[in-house]
Amino acid sequence: MSLVTCDLSVSMDGFAAGPGQTRELPFGTIEHDRLHDWMFDPEAEAENRAEIDAIVDAGAFIMGRHMFGPDRGEWDLDWHGWWGENPPYHRPVFVLAHRERADLPMEGGTTFHFVTDGIHAALERARAAAGDRNVAIAGGPGTVNQFLAAGLIDELRVHVTPTIIGAGERLFDGVPPAAFEQVSARSTSIVTHLVYHPVR
Amino acid sequence: MSLVTCDLSVSMDGFAAGPGQTRELPFGTIEHDRLHDWMFDPEAEAENRAEIDAIVDAGAFIMGRHMFGPDRGEWDLDWHGWWGENPPYHRPVFVLAHRERADLPMEGGTTFHFVTDGIHAALERARAAAGDRNVAIAGGPGTVNQFLAAGLIDELRVHVTPTIIGAGERLFDGVPPAAFEQVSARSTSIVTHLVYHPVR
Repeated sequence: MSLVTCDLSVSMDGFAAGPGQTRELPFGTIEHDRLHDWMFDPEAEAENRAEIDAIVDAGAFIMGRHMFGPDRGEWDLDWHGWWGENPPYHRPVFVLAHRERADLPMEGGTTFHFVTDGIHAALERARAAAGDRNVAIAGGPGTVNQFLAAGLIDELRVHVTPTIIGAGERLFDGVPPAAFEQVSARSTSIVTHLVYHPVR
Repeated sequence: MSLVTCDLSVSMDGFAAGPGQTRELPFGTIEHDRLHDWMFDPEAEAENRAEIDAIVDAGAFIMGRHMFGPDRGEWDLDWHGWWGENPPYHRPVFVLAHRERADLPMEGGTTFHFVTDGIHAALERARAAAGDRNVAIAGGPGTVNQFLAAGLIDELRVHVTPTIIGAGERLFDGVPPAAFEQVSARSTSIVTHLVYHPVR
């Protein structure tokens, strides 16, 4: 059965993204960049291969406006996302936005679609595009928290990095009390992978 | 070598204790009580035996005022802590306090000592009492955060329970940015045990 999955890297104190996001620092400050070393550091990459592969193993993706790029109000039509001309998704990506924008097909099968009528509409379109495959909520934390608060995530994969950051955007901020079932916990040298299913 | 250890149970959103602590609800609200099911639930207790044993395997303990009992200003000399006449520590316990109080010897080897001159003084006395054994920071979160901020904890053991709570006192609140080394991660049915050492 098709699931709604979500992967998010957080610090020990629960921050998933920082203030100060720019085109040069997509995750915010340098400290927050450390949250993602386990994916991008060549040495760490091998031992975390299974979790990295799982992140992009979906039939469609949903992401927030800031995950697509810095929000300066009007669209900059030259901006095609953080990932260059061949993004790692290779499938439809639905970007939650306040302003309409034409579909943006990229190399390698990724097409960005801009959805202005909310998370439920985005999920409906993503499910249709994904078919039998999963829909992945790609971030950032604000978007993940919206989907969690609405009870729409079937599998939450939290990647905890061994650092205290002290500021930024928190996973679970504004999410009402809820119980989960633990699915697995796996620790590699610089990250611990925790998987949860909601108790419904 | 003797270490300063610390065990703390937290929710997925990082809360270690709740508002509303009373004599009947030592951890605050009922929701926060769920943080400790893995220790007190008879079924869970067996599979978490090693971690439970490690919590009280120290030569001396340090705890905050609220961990000893609800703080209503003046001492209530009839209050001997939450644990009855034979507390599970069986060793000296140094309680951080604002008011002097005479030593309180209990059954089974536990003696509560009340320390009014701060965390460094408490640690010095606890180290002397512990000899070659570890000193354990027993909580609550405010006390743990003070010791973390001062860089005094050698081994932090975080027990993550699969629940979102949304309010209370957070582990790591006010602790400055810091890097840790992951020591281990172990998941049982209703808790995940994470062990960290600070990078110094």
